[in-house]
Amino acid sequence: MLVARGGAGYSLPRQNRGLANAMTKRTIFDENLERNPANYEPLTPLSFLERTAGVYPGRTAVIYGDRRYTWAQVNERCKRLASALRRRGVSRGDTVSIIASNTPELLEAHLGLSMTGAVLNSINVRLDVATVNYILKHGEAKVLVTDRQYSNTAKRALEGLRPKPLVVDIDDRSITDGELIGELDYEGLLKEGDPDFKAPRLEDEWDAVTLNYTSGTTADPKGVVCSHRGVYLNALGNVMLAGMTLHPIYLWTLPMFHANGWCFPWTVTVLGGTHVCLRRVEPGPIFDLLVEHGVTHLCGAPVVLNMLINATEHERKPLPRRVTMVTAGSAPPAAVLAGMERLGFEVVHGYGLTETYGASVVSAWKSEWDGLPLQERARLKARQGVKTVVEAGAMVADPETLEPVVPDGKTPGEILLRGNIMMKGYLKNPAATKEAFRGGWFHSGDVGVMHPDGYLEVTDRSKDIVISGGENISSVEVENTLYGHPAVLEAAVVARPDPKWGEAPCAFVTLKPGANVGAEELIAFCRERLAGFKVPRTVVFSELPKTATGKVQKFVLRERARTLSEKETAGG
Amino acid sequence: MLVARGGAGYSLPRQNRGLANAMTKRTIFDENLERNPANYEPLTPLSFLERTAGVYPGRTAVIYGDRRYTWAQVNERCKRLASALRRRGVSRGDTVSIIASNTPELLEAHLGLSMTGAVLNSINVRLDVATVNYILKHGEAKVLVTDRQYSNTAKRALEGLRPKPLVVDIDDRSITDGELIGELDYEGLLKEGDPDFKAPRLEDEWDAVTLNYTSGTTADPKGVVCSHRGVYLNALGNVMLAGMTLHPIYLWTLPMFHANGWCFPWTVTVLGGTHVCLRRVEPGPIFDLLVEHGVTHLCGAPVVLNMLINATEHERKPLPRRVTMVTAGSAPPAAVLAGMERLGFEVVHGYGLTETYGASVVSAWKSEWDGLPLQERARLKARQGVKTVVEAGAMVADPETLEPVVPDGKTPGEILLRGNIMMKGYLKNPAATKEAFRGGWFHSGDVGVMHPDGYLEVTDRSKDIVISGGENISSVEVENTLYGHPAVLEAAVVARPDPKWGEAPCAFVTLKPGANVGAEELIAFCRERLAGFKVPRTVVFSELPKTATGKVQKFVLRERARTLSEKETAGG
Repeated sequence: MLVARGGAGYSLPRQNRGLANAMTKRTIFDENLERNPANYEPLTPLSFLERTAGVYPGRTAVIYGDRRYTWAQVNERCKRLASALRRRGVSRGDTVSIIASNTPELLEAHLGLSMTGAVLNSINVRLDVATVNYILKHGEAKVLVTDRQYSNTAKRALEGLRPKPLVVDIDDRSITDGELIGELDYEGLLKEGDPDFKAPRLEDEWDAVTLNYTSGTTADPKGVVCSHRGVYLNALGNVMLAGMTLHPIYLWTLPMFHANGWCFPWTVTVLGGTHVCLRRVEPGPIFDLLVEHGVTHLCGAPVVLNMLINATEHERKPLPRRVTMVTAGSAPPAAVLAGMERLGFEVVHGYGLTETYGASVVSAWKSEWDGLPLQERARLKARQGVKTVVEAGAMVADPETLEPVVPDGKTPGEILLRGNIMMKGYLKNPAATKEAFRGGWFHSGDVGVMHPDGYLEVTDRSKDIVISGGENISSVEVENTLYGHPAVLEAAVVARPDPKWGEAPCAFVTLKPGANVGAEELIAFCRERLAGFKVPRTVVFSELPKTATGKVQKFVLRERARTLSEKETAGG
Repeated sequence: MLVARGGAGYSLPRQNRGLANAMTKRTIFDENLERNPANYEPLTPLSFLERTAGVYPGRTAVIYGDRRYTWAQVNERCKRLASALRRRGVSRGDTVSIIASNTPELLEAHLGLSMTGAVLNSINVRLDVATVNYILKHGEAKVLVTDRQYSNTAKRALEGLRPKPLVVDIDDRSITDGELIGELDYEGLLKEGDPDFKAPRLEDEWDAVTLNYTSGTTADPKGVVCSHRGVYLNALGNVMLAGMTLHPIYLWTLPMFHANGWCFPWTVTVLGGTHVCLRRVEPGPIFDLLVEHGVTHLCGAPVVLNMLINATEHERKPLPRRVTMVTAGSAPPAAVLAGMERLGFEVVHGYGLTETYGASVVSAWKSEWDGLPLQERARLKARQGVKTVVEAGAMVADPETLEPVVPDGKTPGEILLRGNIMMKGYLKNPAATKEAFRGGWFHSGDVGVMHPDGYLEVTDRSKDIVISGGENISSVEVENTLYGHPAVLEAAVVARPDPKWGEAPCAFVTLKPGANVGAEELIAFCRERLAGFKVPRTVVFSELPKTATGKVQKFVLRERARTLSEKETAGG
């Protein structure tokens, strides 16, 4: 009977057995009121492009250097792309991979590719040859579109692949040194296409639309599969998350390959906005574009916020209007939030993973906090927050019993998430999918606490806690303290084995250009601000090793901390 | 196999047979990536209340006279309402009817009632006893909640009903003359309820959430059934339609019983806004509330816009901020749009029916029109426009062949709509449902044209065209012209039999208080502005008969026009 009513295709655990009968009895509302082609349409972000191109055909959709496309042109280019690929045999459930910077081509792949029924696999441009090779093989890429800046990696990653994908070059004028390795170039492919292509109708909103590989630190990367339904909903959720209204001007500082730019390719499109593309994320060009185009919104990891704050006098420009910047990935330190505010940015802090389509938790701001002192405001905003509008559940709980932790802001648990913006699962990896979704919740692997007001806070990535003398130390807390020192550019704290306490916090620090400070001074700085056991016993001045998506590779630092000789260290 | 992929439960007509095989082959993305309780959640507006009450518990949710409720309080009252009704036997698929003005109780019914699984049937307060009786009987109401202002009608409408519904009074302090007719009053019912009620989980987003009866003019009213999915999506669509951001202050000038207030009960809730309730729609109190609470948005039929424009000097107040007013139901005449603009309102013009959850077409504004002369801007805005973001299709076509009309702004056709914001169907009326959805489109019954830029315009309700000398005359066009005369308050044009031309336009006109103008002058005014055959040959000064929802009852006027003696007429 559930199936007859067009149910979700699975049976949910009933929360109240006593109500079950009442909830499934057949009523007058279950007769002759079925879904039909007039009143049911699969949710898909393809509808956003179609509508915007129809309503605002002449409006500027894309700006990239001196290139400009209107919405009518973007729509035509997307139709050409999709129909050309179909003519070359691409169809529903095929994978099309792309390695590209934030260019119009990568945007078109996001907006138009799924007109073919194919799945977009946007690959991180910073990955090594072996990983790209693994992704192309595992994802069974039928096509690889590659920006010539990355053709060296792509060429080697393609070696030995059977069958070899169709290779298409993006021959960006601004890049001259990369080799062209494809059968044809992107514009040539578009020429093969039909500008009036009618995409086959999507049958099922649960169909896959994207495939993104998470940057595995220890195991093979996993392929995160997202659905049309999920992207549609998260794109609308972003409107409210970022406080966007009609026609935003959006600057692409967040890599589009990173969790599909948190679904902002589709959010900006549904609002008939303008995508300002950007190949290299550098402070000077960012400030130039903010001013030149009257940018209203952008996104980026805290490292980008940091870059803007530390821009030189020459690079920096006063903002002509209030700009909203959404950040996620790791909590922005209070000093960074304060710095952004002084520059005139409004920062929205979210939390999510590739598996959650981007932000699924947001540090929703309350107007009653407006009057608080800066440090207090920053502390509140640095919390990850509450579920977004389109998310069904977010809690901090025991990952085995699913019992929520006491909301005291102290008791740690795992952050668990649930709802329509959770991935379909990991491609060809039912074991990992089952593990990630056990108990009906997505297991983030991140450790956090729940505050009394219902806002959750990430205290550490799992296994990233420093346990010293039996006390848990949040490395994030120590890092935040170090960021408060004016000389510190970046800081990462990990556990170092300690003969007396088991483990002790060990800090790796990068200083700002021209800054000069010793380990002793930083330790003293921390001692004034932290409980004694939380103070780093070791400070190492060093570049921080990072993954291709800019996350600090703590496992590398832990290994370095473990093998540090006394000579290399200072302080303690 | 479509079922295995969790399809929509029906087979869509394929638009391209040649692609069918390619689109249904089984791929790597169809294996082990199913919906599960962690990654799939039925869409329901209940999630909006739950989230907003959790994130903004202390914020003002409702203002009604000197009553105030926070979001935590509204949530608690809704839980009490739902659990009390469950204890009294209400469960999934039961109908709960309510006859009430725009009070907190009616809002709570919209936001909370479906926690029981029941369906909300909000009844037009202006309906006659026989119609209310028909609705209670046809909808099989298990409960009737009635505002004491309407208890006289309700009491008589309940006569002879078996089984008799549970009757609950809303004992509003501001109403003293209505009788209390129920077993208990609303606040007493809430006292029976559990403030910590856990609603049974919704199993299927296609489940019914509301039932609204259209005001039939000739036949029995039809019961329009809407789904959780549709309300969820249209509530989010309204955010973009009305350009809303976080925490709107919304004034309830649109009756909530009218197509469920176009889904704005849920839109304002998802944004953590404030509902300003209002029992009587009168210009003085509206201006008072706009100023007192800093209202940002309101909705209403053109008659409300007219009321604001014609407010007396004493009633009118300067707006402290820009206010957006969404209007639909019939096209606002250019003079009305111009008048609203002068008062400082931004008017958003939409089009829809009870069957479409509110507006499903919107006269999307383009910034390039900003600089046009007022009359031209008004002409563009008076067009109904394009499909909303959450609508799948809107066209003007031959209702039998479904062939779209030539987009020349002249060729008439029927307005057809399609998508997730079309009703599930008419309750217990499969024949009418099938008729309304024939060919995979919802048939609006309205006649319109498609302009070359893709904007549609309603030219007349079906059967409401005046055909004179073989030429079609749009009564809307003639009415708009009459509204341009400074003395005209309201105008309605219908066909009057004419011995020479078959039919001729006959205008019924109400003048503004104190205005004085003769039929000859109005006819001369039209002659300067319209083609000769469109000029009314008859003008009758009279109150306009209206349906309970404020639509002019043209069938009454047509009958009056048919039987007019020469003595009653002037002009012509």
